[in-house]
Amino acid sequence: MTGVAIVGASGYASRELIRILLNHPGAEIRVATSRQDDSPRVDALHPSLAGRIDLACEPFDADRLAERARVAFLALPHTASMAVVASLRERNVRVIDLSADYRLTDAQIYADWYGHTHTDAVGLKEAVYGLPELYRESIPPAGLIANPGCYTSTSILALAPLIRENLVERTGIVIDAKSGVSGAGRSPKLSTHFPECNESFSAYNVGKHRHTPEIDQVLTDVGCAQGDPVEVIFTPHLVPMDRGIFATIYATPRGPVVEHDLLDLYRSFYKQSPFVRVVSHLPATKESAFTNYCDITVRVVRGKVVVLACLDNLIKGASGVAVQNFNLMFGHPETTGLAL
Amino acid sequence: MTGVAIVGASGYASRELIRILLNHPGAEIRVATSRQDDSPRVDALHPSLAGRIDLACEPFDADRLAERARVAFLALPHTASMAVVASLRERNVRVIDLSADYRLTDAQIYADWYGHTHTDAVGLKEAVYGLPELYRESIPPAGLIANPGCYTSTSILALAPLIRENLVERTGIVIDAKSGVSGAGRSPKLSTHFPECNESFSAYNVGKHRHTPEIDQVLTDVGCAQGDPVEVIFTPHLVPMDRGIFATIYATPRGPVVEHDLLDLYRSFYKQSPFVRVVSHLPATKESAFTNYCDITVRVVRGKVVVLACLDNLIKGASGVAVQNFNLMFGHPETTGLAL
Amino acid sequence: MTGVAIVGASGYASRELIRILLNHPGAEIRVATSRQDDSPRVDALHPSLAGRIDLACEPFDADRLAERARVAFLALPHTASMAVVASLRERNVRVIDLSADYRLTDAQIYADWYGHTHTDAVGLKEAVYGLPELYRESIPPAGLIANPGCYTSTSILALAPLIRENLVERTGIVIDAKSGVSGAGRSPKLSTHFPECNESFSAYNVGKHRHTPEIDQVLTDVGCAQGDPVEVIFTPHLVPMDRGIFATIYATPRGPVVEHDLLDLYRSFYKQSPFVRVVSHLPATKESAFTNYCDITVRVVRGKVVVLACLDNLIKGASGVAVQNFNLMFGHPETTGLAL
Amino acid sequence: MTGVAIVGASGYASRELIRILLNHPGAEIRVATSRQDDSPRVDALHPSLAGRIDLACEPFDADRLAERARVAFLALPHTASMAVVASLRERNVRVIDLSADYRLTDAQIYADWYGHTHTDAVGLKEAVYGLPELYRESIPPAGLIANPGCYTSTSILALAPLIRENLVERTGIVIDAKSGVSGAGRSPKLSTHFPECNESFSAYNVGKHRHTPEIDQVLTDVGCAQGDPVEVIFTPHLVPMDRGIFATIYATPRGPVVEHDLLDLYRSFYKQSPFVRVVSHLPATKESAFTNYCDITVRVVRGKVVVLACLDNLIKGASGVAVQNFNLMFGHPETTGLAL
Repeated sequence: MTGVAIVGASGYASRELIRILLNHPGAEIRVATSRQDDSPRVDALHPSLAGRIDLACEPFDADRLAERARVAFLALPHTASMAVVASLRERNVRVIDLSADYRLTDAQIYADWYGHTHTDAVGLKEAVYGLPELYRESIPPAGLIANPGCYTSTSILALAPLIRENLVERTGIVIDAKSGVSGAGRSPKLSTHFPECNESFSAYNVGKHRHTPEIDQVLTDVGCAQGDPVEVIFTPHLVPMDRGIFATIYATPRGPVVEHDLLDLYRSFYKQSPFVRVVSHLPATKESAFTNYCDITVRVVRGKVVVLACLDNLIKGASGVAVQNFNLMFGHPETTGLAL
Repeated sequence: MTGVAIVGASGYASRELIRILLNHPGAEIRVATSRQDDSPRVDALHPSLAGRIDLACEPFDADRLAERARVAFLALPHTASMAVVASLRERNVRVIDLSADYRLTDAQIYADWYGHTHTDAVGLKEAVYGLPELYRESIPPAGLIANPGCYTSTSILALAPLIRENLVERTGIVIDAKSGVSGAGRSPKLSTHFPECNESFSAYNVGKHRHTPEIDQVLTDVGCAQGDPVEVIFTPHLVPMDRGIFATIYATPRGPVVEHDLLDLYRSFYKQSPFVRVVSHLPATKESAFTNYCDITVRVVRGKVVVLACLDNLIKGASGVAVQNFNLMFGHPETTGLAL
Repeated sequence: MTGVAIVGASGYASRELIRILLNHPGAEIRVATSRQDDSPRVDALHPSLAGRIDLACEPFDADRLAERARVAFLALPHTASMAVVASLRERNVRVIDLSADYRLTDAQIYADWYGHTHTDAVGLKEAVYGLPELYRESIPPAGLIANPGCYTSTSILALAPLIRENLVERTGIVIDAKSGVSGAGRSPKLSTHFPECNESFSAYNVGKHRHTPEIDQVLTDVGCAQGDPVEVIFTPHLVPMDRGIFATIYATPRGPVVEHDLLDLYRSFYKQSPFVRVVSHLPATKESAFTNYCDITVRVVRGKVVVLACLDNLIKGASGVAVQNFNLMFGHPETTGLAL
Repeated sequence: MTGVAIVGASGYASRELIRILLNHPGAEIRVATSRQDDSPRVDALHPSLAGRIDLACEPFDADRLAERARVAFLALPHTASMAVVASLRERNVRVIDLSADYRLTDAQIYADWYGHTHTDAVGLKEAVYGLPELYRESIPPAGLIANPGCYTSTSILALAPLIRENLVERTGIVIDAKSGVSGAGRSPKLSTHFPECNESFSAYNVGKHRHTPEIDQVLTDVGCAQGDPVEVIFTPHLVPMDRGIFATIYATPRGPVVEHDLLDLYRSFYKQSPFVRVVSHLPATKESAFTNYCDITVRVVRGKVVVLACLDNLIKGASGVAVQNFNLMFGHPETTGLAL
């Protein structure tokens, strides 16, 4: 039984993570931290957990945490994560960081997109990108996992087979992405106020969303044998629903493509990946909601390859993949605790 | 053409009010105020009004307002309204106040339920309760209208015929009320954050909602001939929808009642009221959404009288009834501008 | 490992039941039936189950079912259940019936409310009402379980402590109930067409809902020592959300009541019941959604006892309580498979 | 006052049309038809219209219709429209057809996409495509208007300036479109059953949606001076909301483009069009919901032109544009009755 800490317990991803870990036979949540002054109980933060967890939050303290936990899941805002990682790693606590702080390998790109200087070069070097479907071999020994972004996972899983096989042009790829509102976090804002976003569909951060360089970077890495960097046009939208990300992706094939062959390629590419379902029907976010699955299909329309992919942003896009990483790091089957 | 001021232009009721007044042949919006520093344009506050109104907000200034407007609609938080009413009335500006500040005639009850001392005894005395269906005669000459609350209008219109005819017991009346989220205003809060209230139904302020004494007071007044005060058990709930209030009301008849006769009574009671529709089917909030109608029906179930009523909280529950009051005050037919 | 049959696999309750049983260590789904001609695969009926179950539906055949399954969950429309129960019982298959067919012990009341003559008097006699919180002792040996209705469970769990302790009047109890749309089943109808019920709140079947006599019957049984039958005024409403039932219940106390004492009574009453959470805050359906919990609290408002209760209609209101019953019948801990 | 007939009064577009025409000073609804046997009243079909229209539906009869109406709005399924148009035109009734029957000028393309032979070659020849922003000159004298599709209007208005100015490539244009559920009509289906589509986002008819050839045809016509046909990749999605269409469109510029200049081009292109709002912010469907506006903006992202456009599918995408056409045909200002 591995002692686990949840650092930043008040958000939605943390709530889902706690819910999953409570049913995980190899994990025990021993620490939960919060910056709230009054050390709220976890089930006061998350009434849905009433009767399921008897634990009060505490302020973050690396020493006290390290006494009880061998791994810390960080669910902190970016920049807050990099402020605590070193203290945990020094105490031999392994870290699964759900923030964006260790996803971009190039500190300059981080600075450009996030508007902050990166202050933990050591961590940045140690970090392993935690997308098991692509980096399953690197994760088990890792001390620090950069858990991928939700849009990012959807987009990368949807495009990786095409890029690795060099079937499509690497620039001009359009990722038209749609997210439920929980993707915006739990802090109330006007844009996520119910009467503003209910019964409305909108685009936001067009051309500016911070998951863009992360998608570029990982897909470029996926396709490294062929050299050219991948550069995507990424457009996020807000959908009046709680959870779910849907990406509709348009890529230009380098040569003739056949829909059936592409589906076969995807099935083969993911045959070792229990949480990617290559389906022949057009998926709907609801089919993967509350699960750790990413559902993907492919179509060819008037000469374009159209990939459609979806997942639950809070699970496969955050907490569930974090538990996949935990499983790989601590020697459990990848699916343990994730048959949701 | 009457010059109109909207004091506190940034909320939802103001947006609806502006939208209605823009099509009103007898009103011209000449002033809009906001406490925001940068004097935002009205259509920047409300992008849905783009191209429809060319006006920038200004800070509240009674003199400047009085030069241009003969009537001010106040859409301010409670206590903020009573701070400005006197300055407007002194300058002969008539006021339609959408806040709660002038609805309760007894300053002590106001203090008890709102937690503030009432500071405008003069205004309180002058104020006329602006529910045209009950006080149509008093409104035309009024200088200060206390526009009713949204739950209140629904509940009172649903119960007035029974109370006036003394058909039901005056205590123990249960008002189980349900509101869309826009009723909570436009300020983001955790409880109105989309992922919290979407796909959820909950009760709030049970036994404590401030519309309770307002309902008591007006219904007691409606039934004054019979003496006993009305005391209701009022339970508000939050529905995952934008707009609409639905009240399911349970009253104990004093004697035998027949459903059909009750429907006739309601039809007769409201036959001069163009915005009350007594229907025989069970109403749905969507049927009155975006209109100024209140839909009501009555059933008898196992000896209880069950009244079901609904309306659009932002229109019939706020801006629309305000325009009814405006029409009565300025000599227009009651329905002008309200055929939405 | 107990072989299990799902009879009528295409509905929402069946989908949830399958999802739960797939993670249940003591159950194996060996049979799924459907009246659809083409013997659809279960994951074709329910795409969310893709990759999780490899089973095709078959037509109902009691012999073939009995060869493989020791228990059948019937998720059929009323009247369809009573047409097959005898054939299963004769073959020693135990039955958990999710329809209404065996809930009402009096065939005449069934006929009055459902408009059909009851044709299985033997089954009616054998049936045990499957609400474990009240009938935990009778369920283990049962051959035929009448799984309770969703509104019914909510209402009964909310009222049972008050009735058993004889604290409230037995007539005039108001149950104002609200349900998500999945409660109406999976067959498309105009009233559950998205653009009709989204952004709308409405009442339906006022005074006529078939769960009424079921609530009366069970609560009368709960309070049998005191004699008088319970008769409730039950009003169902439709909420624009998928799942969840919320009941706001108003009862008249027979004597003085104190809120705090009532909460203690509820806690004590349910202390052996792992799936009833007596909470002190006002519950929201979302907190119990996707779980097998029923959350309850109590308030005293102007002399009335107000009980607020909610649960997930598809789980605690249907499939989850069915698995509780399965657990009790087959010797598993009541919570097995239900830590959702 | 022009006598108007609504042929096929039971759908959502008809309801909106009736609602608009009731406030139109130059129109009087004298006929409403329905295939329902019992000649339902219009306000029985649409309870929201209670108290606003006193008219019963009748079966379609060209003679009786022509006696009272000079124009008929046809809100019939495709193929049903072409079965009645000739009978109306022979009787000198002008027709605004909201179905797809007269939109495609090439009967073979109609047959290919709709799976039916076109049976009214005369009407096809007479029909004028009713998108006022592009064909304002042709509409006034028209006897038969083919009212455009909702996805189509959004897409065409968003792309017309780029195509007419020949600024973008004509193939490979990606139209990623999203629609509220009312776009699917009022007939209940599993895919539009609330619990299926609520809290879900999905794609449908990928590569096969019938609005595709309509967009191709009109944009090819818009860009006729330059010759090459336009061919779009059109992907429709279903959004869990009632109304609104949002299109995110990706086009490849033929040469360098500057965002600011593109916005200027759009403003100039639509300066005579009162219902197109070229905005600089990113639009949301809610801002144009319940209005006749189409909101459009443009961005340049990594060398692609990204156009974002939205409108209310039932108004600007159906009934509102129909009234624009009516206004142009009968000599009213284009905006009459449409200041919603």
